Amino acid sequence: MTLHSDPSVAPDARSFVDVATDSPFPIQNLPFGAARLSNDRERVVSRIGSWIIDLAALDAAGHFADTPAAGKALFDLPSLNRFSAAGRPTWRAVRSRLAALLAADAPTLRDDETLRAAVLHDSTNVTMLMPMEIGDYTDFYSSREHATNVGTMFRDPENALLPNWLHLPVGYHGRASSVVLDGTPVRRPRGQTIPADADAPVFGPSRLLDFELEMGFFTGPGNALGEPIPVDQADAHILGLVLVNDWSARDIQKWEYVPLGPFNAKNFATTISPWVITLDALAPFREAGPVQDPKPLPYLQESDAWSLDIQLEVALRTETMRGEGHVIARSNARHLYWNIRQQLAHHTITGCNTRPGDLMASGTISGPTPDSRGSMLELAWRGTQPLSLPGGEERRFLADGDEVILRGWCEGDGYRIGFGEARGIVLPALEG
Amino acid sequence: MTLHSDPSVAPDARSFVDVATDSPFPIQNLPFGAARLSNDRERVVSRIGSWIIDLAALDAAGHFADTPAAGKALFDLPSLNRFSAAGRPTWRAVRSRLAALLAADAPTLRDDETLRAAVLHDSTNVTMLMPMEIGDYTDFYSSREHATNVGTMFRDPENALLPNWLHLPVGYHGRASSVVLDGTPVRRPRGQTIPADADAPVFGPSRLLDFELEMGFFTGPGNALGEPIPVDQADAHILGLVLVNDWSARDIQKWEYVPLGPFNAKNFATTISPWVITLDALAPFREAGPVQDPKPLPYLQESDAWSLDIQLEVALRTETMRGEGHVIARSNARHLYWNIRQQLAHHTITGCNTRPGDLMASGTISGPTPDSRGSMLELAWRGTQPLSLPGGEERRFLADGDEVILRGWCEGDGYRIGFGEARGIVLPALEG
Repeated sequence: MTLHSDPSVAPDARSFVDVATDSPFPIQNLPFGAARLSNDRERVVSRIGSWIIDLAALDAAGHFADTPAAGKALFDLPSLNRFSAAGRPTWRAVRSRLAALLAADAPTLRDDETLRAAVLHDSTNVTMLMPMEIGDYTDFYSSREHATNVGTMFRDPENALLPNWLHLPVGYHGRASSVVLDGTPVRRPRGQTIPADADAPVFGPSRLLDFELEMGFFTGPGNALGEPIPVDQADAHILGLVLVNDWSARDIQKWEYVPLGPFNAKNFATTISPWVITLDALAPFREAGPVQDPKPLPYLQESDAWSLDIQLEVALRTETMRGEGHVIARSNARHLYWNIRQQLAHHTITGCNTRPGDLMASGTISGPTPDSRGSMLELAWRGTQPLSLPGGEERRFLADGDEVILRGWCEGDGYRIGFGEARGIVLPALEG
Repeated sequence: MTLHSDPSVAPDARSFVDVATDSPFPIQNLPFGAARLSNDRERVVSRIGSWIIDLAALDAAGHFADTPAAGKALFDLPSLNRFSAAGRPTWRAVRSRLAALLAADAPTLRDDETLRAAVLHDSTNVTMLMPMEIGDYTDFYSSREHATNVGTMFRDPENALLPNWLHLPVGYHGRASSVVLDGTPVRRPRGQTIPADADAPVFGPSRLLDFELEMGFFTGPGNALGEPIPVDQADAHILGLVLVNDWSARDIQKWEYVPLGPFNAKNFATTISPWVITLDALAPFREAGPVQDPKPLPYLQESDAWSLDIQLEVALRTETMRGEGHVIARSNARHLYWNIRQQLAHHTITGCNTRPGDLMASGTISGPTPDSRGSMLELAWRGTQPLSLPGGEERRFLADGDEVILRGWCEGDGYRIGFGEARGIVLPALEG
């Protein structure tokens, strides 16, 4: 079978599997993830509609035998690391084969009840797992609007952006061990904070707990130490993207972060969504990014359209709310000033190596309007403009029992490429 | 066999294995590491004198059968992670058994030529490996003298320490992927730097490449997310220590590090020594730490003697030098203001989880005298006081071809607990 030369699946492609028109997972998506199936097996999977696709079962039945995945044992595993290491020709061939097998007019899977039973699992009987064993987690700071908002609040509105910001994608190393999956509760951290006008810190629960609306990409195959990844080859090292909530304790951060950056303020939890949406699925939603002025140094100059039109929203569901919560922010990944290729090129320009399964997040994605701000800090403007919620509640920061729900999707012509959700509910701090 | 109640091996203990009197690896040390043996097997090992001890061979012969290591398959592995996960009772029992088997009057190994041949390997035929697969790497900033020197040079000599420094062990997340083993060459990084009085950065090789003399500890078993490790239990989660060279590009750092901390300036390489020296071996060298004033918050209050008297030195071997290089700094781990238990307690106070094999480094260890400063930045005082080397060379920062050699040891009564070395030679930057 010839592989598609266009990496995306045609907008009018349809599957024999019933997929609701508003499903995040039509045949045009076909994301990758890891899951514990109803038979307790931990497998690399994909998804269509409400069905989880066991790639190991397809592999065992020989359906990847003529692809670069053949013989590599990529799927009977509890994470995507090995698949991510295999590289783009393999990612693309596997996804193309999936699209072919699931097509409305393809009888192989459609007409083979035994194979279908082995391969397709009702999502309600499946537990999603962390998609990767994350080697290193990096967090960038690539939204100009977010950096400007923060600089305006805490420094000088006339010089809100620091001198380096327009010249390089500022970033820092985060904590990989505490990256958790959608649905994992997040305990309010305790730590040191400094009361106003005090000269010594106090210890206790963070009072200024916040979320940050971000996206992140997973790397693979990666570069050797000492060998930078050029910007125009960086997408070959990016499997795909997930939603990221970079939980932040603003009061802990304020006291600790000078001079070495955030540490305890962010090391207690980072939540990601379970499905890795591939760059191939996102190809129709690429567009030219913002004009970069001043022009970046050559190693950061982007020659292609690598901004991504991904619609994002944040819902807050307090303890008194029912349903899916109240949307408090709507943003879009296209607002990012530095794109994912530039981020990876910058990260590795020193020779820093990456490994399959590293996570690199965007930083808070804020847009130009007040309702597109990607953190409570900005939405309530440092607590000065509390958010009014339905039912009369107000929020300056997050309260115990609040659930934060990030959602993301690309709106195609007659279909939607969805990221699903990244949820987390705030538990009260430990006592003492 | 009864386990030792004192975790250290008696100062007058001797082995049937010949050990030179100045060897870093007498029977009182018995460190842990990972190695590729002459038979190409990758194993968890220990060392006595010039002999590498294959712990998997001892285990296979049943010599850990009555210890907590029994049946856990901890040694036929290429890293210490699983051993580190097993916890202190296992670490202690294995080391005590090793000491018993190697004692001068113990016939079991001494008189069994076949067993000796399987277990003891000449170190010249063995390749040391990275001791751990490092999950996360954290770097603290715990030397008051170093923080004061940096603050004096770059900020205000009258207010050299930032307000938070005496209240918490400042730290940041580092890059785990680029932690490399002793002997690995380090390529000079390229990146963005800002010329004096310029308003835009330039791209090129770092001109201000530096080392940092540090020590680091490896964690295990670790804590679950949301469950801090109390300061008085933290040593149960620390297998032991290694030497750490936190290579730093000062010019890249200066331009990038506000507001989120060092990133490219440090992500290109961090060198560690191969042998993990256990807290049990270091027990005789524990002492009370510096008086902490102001008194730390309760979660950081140390009730025991956890400063470590470890002598440290940095040698520089330029391309024109022969031999083992010229010692340019002598320091001691006892100069650290914050100890390893305080570091781990602070790291986890938010609920941040740790995993077996995380690396946490001290930050540059500078002492009170000019010749005890642990970085070139401080030794040459920001380039204003160049170091004079034998043969007439001068250094403000590191030159291509320079080899940096860190060494560390504890001076016991008639024996020495050595850390060995952490070496790295500077390769020229990539062109272009």
